[in-house]
Amino acid sequence: MDSDYGIPRQLSDLQKLRSTYQPELPPCLQGTTVRVEFGDATTPADSSGAHTINRLLPHTYGQPLVHFLRATAKVLDAQIIRDHPAIRVGVVFCGRQSPGGHNVIWGLHNALKTHNPNSTLLGFLGGSEGLFAQRTLDITDDILATYKNLGGYDLLGRTKDQIRTTEQVNAAMAACTALKLDGLVIIGGVTSNTDAAQLAEIFAAAKCPTKVVGVPVTLNGDLKNQFVETNVGFDTICKVNSQLISNVCTDALSAEKYYYFIRLMGRKASHVALECTLQSHPNMVILGEEVSASKLTLFDLTKQICDAVQARAEQDLNHGVILLPEGLIESIPEVYALLQEIHGLLRQEVSVDKISSQLSPWASALFEFLPPFIRKQLLLFPESDDSAQLSQIETEKLLAHLVEAEMNKRLKEGTYKGKKFNAICHFFGYQARGSLPSKFDCDYAYVLGHTTYHILAAGLNGYIATVTNLKNPVNKWRCGAAPITAMMTVKRYGHGPGASSIGKPALHPATVDLKGKAYELLRQNATKFLMDDVYRNPGPLQFDGPGADAKPVTLCVEDQDYMGRIKELQEYLDKVRTIVKPGCSQDVLKAALSAMASVTDILSLISSPSNIGQTPF
Amino acid sequence: MDSDYGIPRQLSDLQKLRSTYQPELPPCLQGTTVRVEFGDATTPADSSGAHTINRLLPHTYGQPLVHFLRATAKVLDAQIIRDHPAIRVGVVFCGRQSPGGHNVIWGLHNALKTHNPNSTLLGFLGGSEGLFAQRTLDITDDILATYKNLGGYDLLGRTKDQIRTTEQVNAAMAACTALKLDGLVIIGGVTSNTDAAQLAEIFAAAKCPTKVVGVPVTLNGDLKNQFVETNVGFDTICKVNSQLISNVCTDALSAEKYYYFIRLMGRKASHVALECTLQSHPNMVILGEEVSASKLTLFDLTKQICDAVQARAEQDLNHGVILLPEGLIESIPEVYALLQEIHGLLRQEVSVDKISSQLSPWASALFEFLPPFIRKQLLLFPESDDSAQLSQIETEKLLAHLVEAEMNKRLKEGTYKGKKFNAICHFFGYQARGSLPSKFDCDYAYVLGHTTYHILAAGLNGYIATVTNLKNPVNKWRCGAAPITAMMTVKRYGHGPGASSIGKPALHPATVDLKGKAYELLRQNATKFLMDDVYRNPGPLQFDGPGADAKPVTLCVEDQDYMGRIKELQEYLDKVRTIVKPGCSQDVLKAALSAMASVTDILSLISSPSNIGQTPF
Repeated sequence: MDSDYGIPRQLSDLQKLRSTYQPELPPCLQGTTVRVEFGDATTPADSSGAHTINRLLPHTYGQPLVHFLRATAKVLDAQIIRDHPAIRVGVVFCGRQSPGGHNVIWGLHNALKTHNPNSTLLGFLGGSEGLFAQRTLDITDDILATYKNLGGYDLLGRTKDQIRTTEQVNAAMAACTALKLDGLVIIGGVTSNTDAAQLAEIFAAAKCPTKVVGVPVTLNGDLKNQFVETNVGFDTICKVNSQLISNVCTDALSAEKYYYFIRLMGRKASHVALECTLQSHPNMVILGEEVSASKLTLFDLTKQICDAVQARAEQDLNHGVILLPEGLIESIPEVYALLQEIHGLLRQEVSVDKISSQLSPWASALFEFLPPFIRKQLLLFPESDDSAQLSQIETEKLLAHLVEAEMNKRLKEGTYKGKKFNAICHFFGYQARGSLPSKFDCDYAYVLGHTTYHILAAGLNGYIATVTNLKNPVNKWRCGAAPITAMMTVKRYGHGPGASSIGKPALHPATVDLKGKAYELLRQNATKFLMDDVYRNPGPLQFDGPGADAKPVTLCVEDQDYMGRIKELQEYLDKVRTIVKPGCSQDVLKAALSAMASVTDILSLISSPSNIGQTPF
Repeated sequence: MDSDYGIPRQLSDLQKLRSTYQPELPPCLQGTTVRVEFGDATTPADSSGAHTINRLLPHTYGQPLVHFLRATAKVLDAQIIRDHPAIRVGVVFCGRQSPGGHNVIWGLHNALKTHNPNSTLLGFLGGSEGLFAQRTLDITDDILATYKNLGGYDLLGRTKDQIRTTEQVNAAMAACTALKLDGLVIIGGVTSNTDAAQLAEIFAAAKCPTKVVGVPVTLNGDLKNQFVETNVGFDTICKVNSQLISNVCTDALSAEKYYYFIRLMGRKASHVALECTLQSHPNMVILGEEVSASKLTLFDLTKQICDAVQARAEQDLNHGVILLPEGLIESIPEVYALLQEIHGLLRQEVSVDKISSQLSPWASALFEFLPPFIRKQLLLFPESDDSAQLSQIETEKLLAHLVEAEMNKRLKEGTYKGKKFNAICHFFGYQARGSLPSKFDCDYAYVLGHTTYHILAAGLNGYIATVTNLKNPVNKWRCGAAPITAMMTVKRYGHGPGASSIGKPALHPATVDLKGKAYELLRQNATKFLMDDVYRNPGPLQFDGPGADAKPVTLCVEDQDYMGRIKELQEYLDKVRTIVKPGCSQDVLKAALSAMASVTDILSLISSPSNIGQTPF
């Protein structure tokens, strides 16, 4: 089986062309000398969890932010790493496959060999199981030749998305020790990067010399925070899905008799659904975050869709396209509560056919109300992140079913006078996941791979590679690293009155920010999208010409660049220090003191707990 | 509602670029003078039905083939049409939407206006219903601007795919008369072109001056015969589906734990499935034509797939991709018989919940054996072409279900020792139908539109526009017209012993030729596809660079060019006539006589009924 990995393969003409594409490096990573600047010690955004995180991850807590700069950059306290001994690095695909993953490996390999041709990059075969079993492939230029800029994870394969149990962690440490690895690079999403943080802590505590670095690669786009603007694969997935959604919109407009319900892969959060909506302008999207925030029930959602169908019918429009994120089902309060009961019983090893009889009366009533196909899907064992098996639950069919029943009822009662309601359901996910990556994902992944090398060369442990200011051209991108602990939060669970328990520190999927600019853009256009059929067809993913260089709309409208501002602030502080050097005049010193006192007063005030928004979940 | 049609719309950047693309015309249609050559009278391929076709369609039977040639072409008996009076033409989208349909209208409009700026093109709004109701849109350059080279049928919309009942035919004739149409152009597939032939006959019999011309536009690719090599839309659909199939293949290879069952839209015949297989190399495809020919039962098919899964597991391969045409379900003999019983009862207006109790004992046994979701889908009312509602029957889920049950059984019995079998099901159709058309479909449709004009200018009735020699570059394409009656066959139905009835003359969907070169190519590679994972990823549809000019594999491997050969033969016959003009020597005449006697002997022998294959269904 192993012999199948990394073999050269026949490429189509387009793949051949793509495999010759060479992504650009931002100025800070060009050449062989890179300056490393250490920022201030970090603190988690979830200040209420800081103590817990510090207690449980003492070796990796509070590490500084890191920026990589041009060798010629004029910065105080930045050091140039000139010494590049040969190092041994292992890399593993941990999460679900996401377009662009191969380019992280290519970028890392390229940086390793550029700085020392004797360095070694080992790819773990078959994902985390290959890590535990120490099955590796020596990555070479020849092997990479037919995987550069191409989709899938088939260069190495992937299995589980977890390195979590004591047994797994020990196996990982044994592998790193046996293979004499200086660095272990984990490519994945929220779950895998949480595991990377835990691994980094345990390795540090055990004085295992292997440094652990995570790379944010997930089509869900939910590993998002001040330090990480977007994830590798998200752009491609949204482009391929938008191509298909807009084809379906054109179809709806041509046949004028169908409502298409399209569910989109993307786990708990609704980033994919929001981005695809902004790209293709379907009639309606129901974001899980909206449903959670407004506590909308199944009944509310059905009514909302039916009212939209009715309003359109009154304008003689008998077709439409409605998007749903796959995580929607868990955002509906009563369904979520039902799922919690089911999962609890499943974990107690109650057999599937007995569960329905052991549910609480109200949960049982809801369960019996649902159509049989959904009941079967709700009974599936939960995923490793405790969520339901979202890709298997056909929420689009459930809603289409409920809407059809309600429209038929309204038709009978005479409150609806339009044509018979016809629904066609789709789930878009698997057919996008293996796509050729977009130019943006090729570039972003390649630069992240290079950045990962510099993190290891700087001897850092428990960091995520960051590339920021992404909405601007590559030559403006900033490269750096942020400690994973600074992105962690601690969940509090309430189980019944009075009882509450504290979860482990972890990365949690970022949800769509209902106060953000991307959501605002959606709200501004929602009525037009619903009633005016302003469908937009971006067309199939292109690698040349119009659209080839497009980036996610949500990335471009948000004003992120947190890393840039942190640097800018530091520059101001440095400037003050330079101006007010010992020996400066008393007046200058007094002015500085008075100004800084006022600044610190204001900042203390606005960053006191009562003024900070809730923790982000 | 009408005011929504033909309105200018916002285009994406890629759409804007595509809308400026100008397809080339083959040399024979360039300039304003085209020579028309009439060939010999045609005869239907189904010689046994010739008498019936002649009897029922006397006005349009036996018309000659027509070739359009350059004005400078040196051909006997060809006439140049120099007079181009202003004419009025109506055009209607009749079948299901297929990418490229808009370009037929553009090509026709361009040709009309080039030959006489006073000519008029009316588009019927909302398909055949718009024809019956005489709702039209005056097609202008301005209106076409945002629809050129773009997908869907939303310029005009479409409704029913039939113009068949006396009421419908009368409404169509009334519309043509009221609107003073010189020509009616019907854009559609097998069903719509059959209707075009009937309409042409009825119009001719009623001395209605409107000439009827059909254009072969259907994503199914099943309007295929000696005269028609492929259909507009087929190339695009196969490219978009192949993009998605190959993404799924990459996904399968990355995760290594799923079997994907993918059903493809394309009606009764398996052309789309065959073409996509040759483009993307999935592990397996089950063609309806193979199943029909070998009379494979559901049990046989299940066993065949399970054996493949088992053989792969023995090589440690626990993933795979299997394609199924949507027409497969009707090719399985026992399911077909069950469907016939159900449809019979539905036509007798037996209510759905009573059907199961009125089935024959064996049909009832099969029905009860099937999972509930399939039962519900089999009970749907048949389509206008008497087939089941193929897009609604989830054959992929049925087979996945049966294969899973069998693999679990083998696992229990110990005859299968591999990993647990996991299936994921997909239906690819709607998401491709609205796609931007490929360059080939843009070109082919535009040239067909121009050809249609010349058919009308030559005063022909009951013809299909043909563009042949398509596998060669546009400057080698031949344009012509063939009488629809020459493509018709007459079906014989056997109902119980002794009884048999004769159907109406009609075009029937061409099935995949199991003796053809495309199928041979599949057979040669089947084992490699099954066992070696030689997945090929052609990538997303491109409009520039590698792959942008690719044509269907099945079109390129088949040696079609029937129209070219017919012309070549005519040239030989003309040459003989020229050489053996009255006044030639006795010896030359004798030699000619003896040679021709032998040629006619051979041809009579090999074209006698006992030597001809069966009628093509």
